[in-house]
Amino acid sequence: MEEQRAEARFPTVGDGSGFADTDRVFKEELQLALRNRGMLLEGLRYPVTPTGLHYLLVHYDIPEVKIEEWRLNIGGLVSRPMSLALDEIRKRPARTIAVTMECAGNGRALLAPRRISQPWLLEAIGTAEWTGTPLRGILEEAGVHREAADILFTGLDRGVEGGEVQHYQRSLTVSEAGREEVLLVYAMNGAPLPPQHGYPLRLLVPGWYGMTSVKWLERIEALADPFQGYQMARAYRYSQTEDEPGEAVSLMRVRALMIPPGIPDFLTRTRLVQAGTVTLMGKAWAGRLSISRVEVSVDGGSTWSDARLGEPVSPHAWTTWTCLWNAIRGSHVVCVRATDSEGNVQPLEQQWNVGGYGNNSVQRVTVIVQ
Amino acid sequence: MEEQRAEARFPTVGDGSGFADTDRVFKEELQLALRNRGMLLEGLRYPVTPTGLHYLLVHYDIPEVKIEEWRLNIGGLVSRPMSLALDEIRKRPARTIAVTMECAGNGRALLAPRRISQPWLLEAIGTAEWTGTPLRGILEEAGVHREAADILFTGLDRGVEGGEVQHYQRSLTVSEAGREEVLLVYAMNGAPLPPQHGYPLRLLVPGWYGMTSVKWLERIEALADPFQGYQMARAYRYSQTEDEPGEAVSLMRVRALMIPPGIPDFLTRTRLVQAGTVTLMGKAWAGRLSISRVEVSVDGGSTWSDARLGEPVSPHAWTTWTCLWNAIRGSHVVCVRATDSEGNVQPLEQQWNVGGYGNNSVQRVTVIVQ
Repeated sequence: MEEQRAEARFPTVGDGSGFADTDRVFKEELQLALRNRGMLLEGLRYPVTPTGLHYLLVHYDIPEVKIEEWRLNIGGLVSRPMSLALDEIRKRPARTIAVTMECAGNGRALLAPRRISQPWLLEAIGTAEWTGTPLRGILEEAGVHREAADILFTGLDRGVEGGEVQHYQRSLTVSEAGREEVLLVYAMNGAPLPPQHGYPLRLLVPGWYGMTSVKWLERIEALADPFQGYQMARAYRYSQTEDEPGEAVSLMRVRALMIPPGIPDFLTRTRLVQAGTVTLMGKAWAGRLSISRVEVSVDGGSTWSDARLGEPVSPHAWTTWTCLWNAIRGSHVVCVRATDSEGNVQPLEQQWNVGGYGNNSVQRVTVIVQ
Repeated sequence: MEEQRAEARFPTVGDGSGFADTDRVFKEELQLALRNRGMLLEGLRYPVTPTGLHYLLVHYDIPEVKIEEWRLNIGGLVSRPMSLALDEIRKRPARTIAVTMECAGNGRALLAPRRISQPWLLEAIGTAEWTGTPLRGILEEAGVHREAADILFTGLDRGVEGGEVQHYQRSLTVSEAGREEVLLVYAMNGAPLPPQHGYPLRLLVPGWYGMTSVKWLERIEALADPFQGYQMARAYRYSQTEDEPGEAVSLMRVRALMIPPGIPDFLTRTRLVQAGTVTLMGKAWAGRLSISRVEVSVDGGSTWSDARLGEPVSPHAWTTWTCLWNAIRGSHVVCVRATDSEGNVQPLEQQWNVGGYGNNSVQRVTVIVQ
């Protein structure tokens, strides 16, 4: 069944177009939403997201790994192929970095029409302290050939997508793979990687959307040509039609999110706030860039005030922002937007793309002040 | 704003009846599904659910707790009111128990019509090793008066439900609260309680659905009369109409779940299995009762075969079951059902109730064998 087309016919979801244009989500989308969890937005109060609150996307199933049998295999266009047990990887130089990670599909379900897939609203984010060994050292030791173009990462997780039976696979150019902050990670927040985050080993590529940080790594290969597998050539493209190849999704776009103020109505999550001074706060991040400005609006985006910026949690993690609001009785739509060090600002309305990727439009929180 | 009616008007969801009769879920339900996470069903392979995979339901927001300021207050009809810091609670006799916990609303979204609320399918379960001190010891030390009927537990989490501003509150009778396995818990799987599971302290009531194990405990009070708050008198009732009080939801009903076999289609989660011998496996539990039988059907529930039962993980946790299946090409609906030690069997079709509670109807997994 390996790497072949699935002969099976799977049920059609919706009208078969792959898109939905209503607010209501299909049972299949709900199934995915109940597996793939977001960070509860009050989690924005923590500089490092507590374990179990970080967002999680599992494309297929969490694989079962017998650690005695598991090896990381490094091959392809290299001079010295390697097969490493976890202990051998843990003995290599170690580095711990706090990294903010966001799913490329965050915000997908806010688009209209939306691609029928994991229906994220805003919550596919998190920051963890990851510990691992730089990939660069391992690539140097293996001796990647000059003619290699791409480094391919293969996970143990296997499923069917676009009608193809596949392991989850993503690649990086040799130069991206060799960046000093790219790690092979075996610990998260000081404990061994939990099964759902890639035990025993995952790739970590700070600055990129999460799809590149392949979990349950089993194989690293140097390839002569850019890898054209499903997750590179068909998924994760900024395209306007199914046929247009479009640009590859890569670094995280600038974004700020706020902790919804006050207390929630259970069902609608509408916020109830007592009149008076309210501290609005949250986090902002921008791929490899820094945050130069965060602004808050309490009138749905008509007028904006500057928030105060803190220091980033690490060079690869989010920055805290705070803003005082004199809340007066009535209903308000509170928004936040960030600007990065290259002047990119979050849009009020997202530019649409087929896969629903990179939606960094501003968060809107309805607040009733009483 | 404490304990009063919210004057605010919140948005209407659906037609305003509180119910939906389609497969499609509303944006408000999706919002809840993305916060309140299920256990990925492949997590049934672990006797104790790894931290971060256990199901989670947060009624309102995770509260922020300053541990220096936090105290557990014990009062009401007691001879010696107490106010305890976490360190004082940790110095008391400790006990660790593996406990299976399920949300009372598990399966709600499978009912038609369904209550518009957290739209669980099957995944609101988990087993953790909880460490804490028996509640009984603290109640004895406080000296609960003879005339007390109920022990009330109040969490720090606060929100609006049924139009009432409230802290999350549940009660137990004095005799239930005094059972030896009822704990005040400060650790989960050997680590301090994560914020989302009730840090610094939660109640743990083995055998009951999860709503009784109040998180972020701040107050315990002995009351002369049965507590009639929202979460006791209005929510968590087995009723056929909004007006009928109905029986209170309490112990978990008998249930088995299986790890979906083979590999998934990404979008539909339909399973693809290679023809041949397949080991079906999963877990079964039954509140305070034991599991006497687990049966598997590969024809949608027409014929059943006995599965093999293992030993329960603890007297308060689930039991592993396994069953070999000779899978032949074609499409199959694989089901599992359990019977408890009092002869209760899971139903093929659930008896409906207003809140969508206690839905233990059999799991149905579509499998394509090729």
